[in-house]
Amino acid sequence: MSKKNDKKEAQKRLEALQVALVDTQIWTMANGQKVCILLEGRDAAGKDGAIKRLTECLSVRNTHVIALPKPTDFDRGAWWFQRYVNRLPSTGEWVVYNRSWYNRAGVEKVMGFSTPEQQETFIRDVPDFESMIVRSGITLIKLWLDISMKEQKERLDDRRADPRKKLKVSDLDQVAQDRWTDYSAARDDMLRRSHHEHGPWICVATDSKVKARENILRHVLKVLDCPHAGREVAAPDPDIVFSYDEVIEGRKTLEP
Amino acid sequence: MSKKNDKKEAQKRLEALQVALVDTQIWTMANGQKVCILLEGRDAAGKDGAIKRLTECLSVRNTHVIALPKPTDFDRGAWWFQRYVNRLPSTGEWVVYNRSWYNRAGVEKVMGFSTPEQQETFIRDVPDFESMIVRSGITLIKLWLDISMKEQKERLDDRRADPRKKLKVSDLDQVAQDRWTDYSAARDDMLRRSHHEHGPWICVATDSKVKARENILRHVLKVLDCPHAGREVAAPDPDIVFSYDEVIEGRKTLEP
Amino acid sequence: MSKKNDKKEAQKRLEALQVALVDTQIWTMANGQKVCILLEGRDAAGKDGAIKRLTECLSVRNTHVIALPKPTDFDRGAWWFQRYVNRLPSTGEWVVYNRSWYNRAGVEKVMGFSTPEQQETFIRDVPDFESMIVRSGITLIKLWLDISMKEQKERLDDRRADPRKKLKVSDLDQVAQDRWTDYSAARDDMLRRSHHEHGPWICVATDSKVKARENILRHVLKVLDCPHAGREVAAPDPDIVFSYDEVIEGRKTLEP
Amino acid sequence: MSKKNDKKEAQKRLEALQVALVDTQIWTMANGQKVCILLEGRDAAGKDGAIKRLTECLSVRNTHVIALPKPTDFDRGAWWFQRYVNRLPSTGEWVVYNRSWYNRAGVEKVMGFSTPEQQETFIRDVPDFESMIVRSGITLIKLWLDISMKEQKERLDDRRADPRKKLKVSDLDQVAQDRWTDYSAARDDMLRRSHHEHGPWICVATDSKVKARENILRHVLKVLDCPHAGREVAAPDPDIVFSYDEVIEGRKTLEP
Ligand SMILES: Nc1ncnc2c1ncn2[C@@H]1O[C@H](COP(=O)(O)OP(=O)(O)O)[C@@H](O)[C@H]1O
Ligand SMILES: Nc1ncnc2c1ncn2[C@@H]1O[C@H](COP(=O)(O)OP(=O)(O)O)[C@@H](O)[C@H]1O
Ligand SMILES: Nc1ncnc2c1ncn2[C@@H]1O[C@H](COP(=O)(O)OP(=O)(O)O)[C@@H](O)[C@H]1O
Ligand SMILES: Nc1ncnc2c1ncn2[C@@H]1O[C@H](COP(=O)(O)O)[C@@H](O)[C@H]1O
Repeated sequence: MSKKNDKKEAQKRLEALQVALVDTQIWTMANGQKVCILLEGRDAAGKDGAIKRLTECLSVRNTHVIALPKPTDFDRGAWWFQRYVNRLPSTGEWVVYNRSWYNRAGVEKVMGFSTPEQQETFIRDVPDFESMIVRSGITLIKLWLDISMKEQKERLDDRRADPRKKLKVSDLDQVAQDRWTDYSAARDDMLRRSHHEHGPWICVATDSKVKARENILRHVLKVLDCPHAGREVAAPDPDIVFSYDEVIEGRKTLEP
Repeated sequence: MSKKNDKKEAQKRLEALQVALVDTQIWTMANGQKVCILLEGRDAAGKDGAIKRLTECLSVRNTHVIALPKPTDFDRGAWWFQRYVNRLPSTGEWVVYNRSWYNRAGVEKVMGFSTPEQQETFIRDVPDFESMIVRSGITLIKLWLDISMKEQKERLDDRRADPRKKLKVSDLDQVAQDRWTDYSAARDDMLRRSHHEHGPWICVATDSKVKARENILRHVLKVLDCPHAGREVAAPDPDIVFSYDEVIEGRKTLEP
Repeated sequence: MSKKNDKKEAQKRLEALQVALVDTQIWTMANGQKVCILLEGRDAAGKDGAIKRLTECLSVRNTHVIALPKPTDFDRGAWWFQRYVNRLPSTGEWVVYNRSWYNRAGVEKVMGFSTPEQQETFIRDVPDFESMIVRSGITLIKLWLDISMKEQKERLDDRRADPRKKLKVSDLDQVAQDRWTDYSAARDDMLRRSHHEHGPWICVATDSKVKARENILRHVLKVLDCPHAGREVAAPDPDIVFSYDEVIEGRKTLEP
Repeated sequence: MSKKNDKKEAQKRLEALQVALVDTQIWTMANGQKVCILLEGRDAAGKDGAIKRLTECLSVRNTHVIALPKPTDFDRGAWWFQRYVNRLPSTGEWVVYNRSWYNRAGVEKVMGFSTPEQQETFIRDVPDFESMIVRSGITLIKLWLDISMKEQKERLDDRRADPRKKLKVSDLDQVAQDRWTDYSAARDDMLRRSHHEHGPWICVATDSKVKARENILRHVLKVLDCPHAGREVAAPDPDIVFSYDEVIEGRKTLEP
């Protein structure tokens, strides 16, 4: 009985957060504010689910979820950021990237989809790139969804067993566990080198999906800080959502 | 108790349909098939909810939901179909239009957002346009979601009362009821003149959301007809989903 | 001495035509008129040179010359007209296509770059496509530049000998003479099947470059018919510029 | 007689340079090199004419001259660089910008088309932006065409008198002379703050059109440095083409 009640309570809290998001979006649209949220994390870290809750009640005409397929030959020839720049928010829009330009520091690095030089160029340039778009008036929120090896295994196994989730299973999942430590090393390098004043990384512990989603919404509300929305919603739980600063300072740790 | 069971049963049926959709999409991706589904209907007819169920388990990287904002000055100067053409599916993609080029025959006609000449040009050209994209290899599915005046009123009232649905309430909703008969006339004219061999209209009675959604999924499965998917799912209910032919022949009626 | 005088005279006439074009463009920009001119013809038929004279004095910001490279994989997957539609003129713009969607009925047919089904679909659809964009307010001018086998040979030989023209020499030029009759057959089929009320073909005899260029400009002026421009310039020479109707009716012939 | 001979000689030199450019482009296309050339300068400084000579013999399908119209509302809402990024060269392409992102530091500053904050953000960001695209593999050539007040006056007067040049006359020309010193101040500030390692400014004295054009071509050849092209062409004349470094160091001066 209590588990069911928990679920009900969680749903109620989620809905309150979504109300606050709705009011916040109405306010940003009126202000012409541009919002860019990007979610990164290993396979099965919970990006899709978080995005679903985040965007569920938002305006379909002013909210764009961008999940780009692997680069075409044209994209490979172009400036790395080009196809992402093309989709940046204009006045009053929210854009949510389901994986982003950081592919170059994650999957591409571990899988060798680009050259070490390209990866180095990327990581060197990304703070400048983000600072620029932020100075141009975009509110940028960068979320790293951090999952444990064990939880990932369970979710990947679960996906393979669930016929509704077949399209979530990709060839790359196969190696997600085998290359666990490579991905950890890539993550550490990426976070360390791309955490900067205008684009701080926010880490989210995602082993509990419910908590992760709820706290992501709380964090977004906190950043956007609409004067008449979400005043009553709780602040993000510091055990679930924390700045990468705290990892640097040793007060928090990411999955090994 | 039975209502709760009904809900559970409905959810089970929905999930079975989604499994079939997943298998169908895997198959279309392997084939390079291009799928274009467009949903039209009055405010609150259930487009968003149907799209949610339809796309819930599909590939985020190969499925695009397009909900264009009102035309910019540039769009107004361009060929009407231009911004839609820009988003048509390429090989292996599914594109779902949440409202479409038919705006010109619906909201624009009733609200006077374009000239009668532009509207006439549109309705005259649309069968040719659609025939062309179909001959180019796109599978086109056109759905008209038909709601009753009473049900619309309830849903619009409900939206206004629900703070999570504030972003669904638009200025245009205000007149949806007042201009009910104008919208009916526009619908009749639109369906009649744009129902053609390569782009037949499929009507969906949407006063029951659950039935409407379920039957839309069934219809899509039926059209795409993947040899190894959905064999066991039921055919669309002919009282919920029917060709506009049946309306012409007097065997079915749309809301007055 | 007389040859030099001829040249001077020709230059003077060209300049007068360009003045009329300038006035015409100012007028179309003020009117918001959309102009689309496409030039087709065999290699070395004189497309580039004609476009140069046509656009030389036009507004660099409102005139776009489109010379698309061979289709990418993405383009191949998409609707054939898609990448051309993307560049159609908006209000006040002139777009000049240096080769166009007709590639599918010309080089692609002769060289086998697409399937016979794709070619058939194209030629069947193109009148509808063009009628649509014309009804949407675009002024469409379709020019077929007709060169003789002998003159083509000379120009191709000349190109190969001229180091400034190296980039004009393409692999396809090599076969232009060998496949002369295939290209003639493709041309005849193309003109016959795509000459229609809203998109008539205008043929231009281009063995004399000077005459061809001059008469193309005269023709464009005649079609656009600006009330205060070009009143004094001569009408196109009927031996150089003529409607494909005249070929059908046997009063004119194209190169064999 | 000698003037005529001069002209002939100049034409001969120009043609030799164009041959070298052709060979250079063939080589960059084979290498997949990406070339981006931008021309800035006051009205009538000679941008159009230089671009004409530069691109005259280049591949129409791999060379793009970009002359963007004034920003639309959408552009105004977007990141300033966005519409330019969209047109950056991909593999094997040459892109020539006729005016560029530097509008924000020139005409927009003098005419007040954007806010001082936007202008400050731009000038602060532009070195980072350019460094990034250069590190991504683009060869960037930035040319400042410097004209004297007297020569500009003559050219503007000449334009107004020449009916073929009517489309070159813009409302902004009217104030080019009146605001001469404002434009000079904007230029000095722009060059000083955006001259950097990866994007050095090259100044071109343009009071002599013939010399300016010739030397621009020589400079482009020098930068691209194709091993088998232009070996025999002269180096740029240091009185016509010089790095902004020389201005900083007081060895050269720009027009007051
Ligand atoms: N060959 C490749 N080169 C570059 N990127 C790739 C390649 N294959 C896949 N990717 C990218 O890797 C990321 C992860 O892929 P995948 O796990 O299949 O997708 P998802 O994030 O939807 O689960 C995606 O952003 C995808 O675009
Ligand atoms: N001024 C306008 N001109 C043309 N189309 C408009 C205008 N205002 C709204 N629309 C279009 O009308 C349709 C219905 O609008 P609305 O009811 O606000 O959106 P939704 O379908 O998301 O509920 C949308 O496709 C919108 O783009
Ligand atoms: N493999 C191909 N598939 C389809 N079209 C092609 C292919 N190769 C060349 N083309 C097209 O054929 C046309 C003629 O090519 P070419 O003679 O090289 O160009 P140009 O017209 O500039 O002389 C161009 O429009 C080009 O895009
Ligand atoms: N209102 C404006 N806002 C911003 N840029 C402008 C505006 N008007 C003209 N421009 C730009 O100023 C430059 C010079 O304009 P013109 O001299 O008209 O070619 C061009 O790049 C124009 O795009």
